[in-house]
Amino acid sequence: MIDFLLLGTGGMVPLPHRWLSSLVVRCRGDLTLFDCGEGTQIAWRAGGWNLRRLSSIFLSHTHADHVAGLPGLLHAIANADRAEPVDIYGPAGTAEVVAGLRTIAPDLPFTVTVIELVDGDRVDLTHGLSASVRAGEHGLPSLIYRLDLPRARRFAPEWARELGIPVDRWHDLQEGRSVTGAAGPVLPGEVLGPHRSGLAFAYVTDTRPLADFPSFLAGVDLLVCEGTYGDSTDLPKAIARGHMTFAEAASLARASSAGALWLTHFSPALTDPDACLPQATAVFPATTIGHAGLTTTLNFSDDKRARVAETATFRDS
Amino acid sequence: MIDFLLLGTGGMVPLPHRWLSSLVVRCRGDLTLFDCGEGTQIAWRAGGWNLRRLSSIFLSHTHADHVAGLPGLLHAIANADRAEPVDIYGPAGTAEVVAGLRTIAPDLPFTVTVIELVDGDRVDLTHGLSASVRAGEHGLPSLIYRLDLPRARRFAPEWARELGIPVDRWHDLQEGRSVTGAAGPVLPGEVLGPHRSGLAFAYVTDTRPLADFPSFLAGVDLLVCEGTYGDSTDLPKAIARGHMTFAEAASLARASSAGALWLTHFSPALTDPDACLPQATAVFPATTIGHAGLTTTLNFSDDKRARVAETATFRDS
Repeated sequence: MIDFLLLGTGGMVPLPHRWLSSLVVRCRGDLTLFDCGEGTQIAWRAGGWNLRRLSSIFLSHTHADHVAGLPGLLHAIANADRAEPVDIYGPAGTAEVVAGLRTIAPDLPFTVTVIELVDGDRVDLTHGLSASVRAGEHGLPSLIYRLDLPRARRFAPEWARELGIPVDRWHDLQEGRSVTGAAGPVLPGEVLGPHRSGLAFAYVTDTRPLADFPSFLAGVDLLVCEGTYGDSTDLPKAIARGHMTFAEAASLARASSAGALWLTHFSPALTDPDACLPQATAVFPATTIGHAGLTTTLNFSDDKRARVAETATFRDS
Repeated sequence: MIDFLLLGTGGMVPLPHRWLSSLVVRCRGDLTLFDCGEGTQIAWRAGGWNLRRLSSIFLSHTHADHVAGLPGLLHAIANADRAEPVDIYGPAGTAEVVAGLRTIAPDLPFTVTVIELVDGDRVDLTHGLSASVRAGEHGLPSLIYRLDLPRARRFAPEWARELGIPVDRWHDLQEGRSVTGAAGPVLPGEVLGPHRSGLAFAYVTDTRPLADFPSFLAGVDLLVCEGTYGDSTDLPKAIARGHMTFAEAASLARASSAGALWLTHFSPALTDPDACLPQATAVFPATTIGHAGLTTTLNFSDDKRARVAETATFRDS
């Protein structure tokens, strides 16, 4: 399963009651952060997840409202006694920005590695989680991320017993290696059930909705997507500034056959995003207006609709 | 008069309910900021003062919790349509840090000048306000600041009339230039009242209380001073880490004959600073535990006790 905690939903400017857009994801104990604007470490503290487990940070782009919180967060991770490496992924220019910001976080008790990614890249993270990358359109290099967690095929102990395989060799079969049974070689496929679909989610912000996004995002269980402008009358602004309206985000969710959509990255001028929710739900009903502290869990399930369960919030705006 | 707004009181780490230490001061319309940790722009927004009028920023030192908010604040000043220059003052190393942080704030509609200061320096700001500097002791270069606003001598129109000076020359006398009256040259001193004491305040944080501080701070109307540790049993920590206890800050206020003391820069472990207030008031009664939104005004007055009037707060923790 994968747990999600939305740390903030603001675009451009952190407001007294709206942290900047940021998402943290927990998969088998390890944490991955998406974007880190000013104040992210404070929102993180309010959420209460263990910073020591943060191993990867993905940046959508290098505008200040998505990266200015990095030095403070790196100090906070150090204060949480992390000693293992932290990897920072982002588009071209990320290394220069991280180097500049580390002027005030030069000495850390862990290694920080910056990996610049481009359209089409794929990164293997821990526990089988992998990230795929597409280029966005935002006036400077920006990236959108899709993460996949494959689901292992079910191991059938009754079949393994029937084929006379010792219990201490079952692990080899589960990991895809052939073993020798009572009647000769046994292939993993003989004791593993059918292919089962994994879990997938995506983080998409600070970009126009591009034509290749729906195929890239196809079937994600949760799409966390920017909706900088609530009202579709602001479409010209969205086009001019490399953003999306609620209706565009909802159209993207529908075209991608997403399981659910969380809207985030609201313009400071959008003081009441809830009022514009109908403009999204008219297109894609399973839309939630994001807010700091919104959490959910994706569970492996053969019933796609049952995978996304909204749970609790730690705080309201 | 001078208005004060405390933006935050946290040390080391910004907390969900405690912004990092920062003070903004208004003198004849122009604003001066002291320190700018992560989140300062958000606290500033909550306070509501006009960012467009921010002309000077003084940094106590270059640790992240005092400077990480600079790029966000510079963007916010730009969003407030400022076009006039902004000067950033700080100790040795400030230029390198500001250059690093400006990796994410490279293009601004105003000039940013960094001026590195050392012990003994003096800076003339606008409207007669001047800043004096002493070196602190904090393990890296740190500075404390004293600001003075002189008070003009009272002009006596009845004496000017008596000496036969035309009204259109009064201004020259008020500014210290001699003019010719009915009976010959008149010196400014002949129409100006006695010397009047001005206003003074100081911002002192992230330093041990050094022996030369009381003479440097002598007679300030308001001392905004760190009290990282509330309880005097934490004195060994204060000594080891270059900070002060409440009692030490109070002793400094008393030795400096300060008008009032605001305590700030509380350790994250100090969850209830109010509980330790008696350890300060036992030494210096006019002590206030700072909190975000605390404001006051210093007024010219011949009665020193009447100068500091606590007014309102925009928010409590």
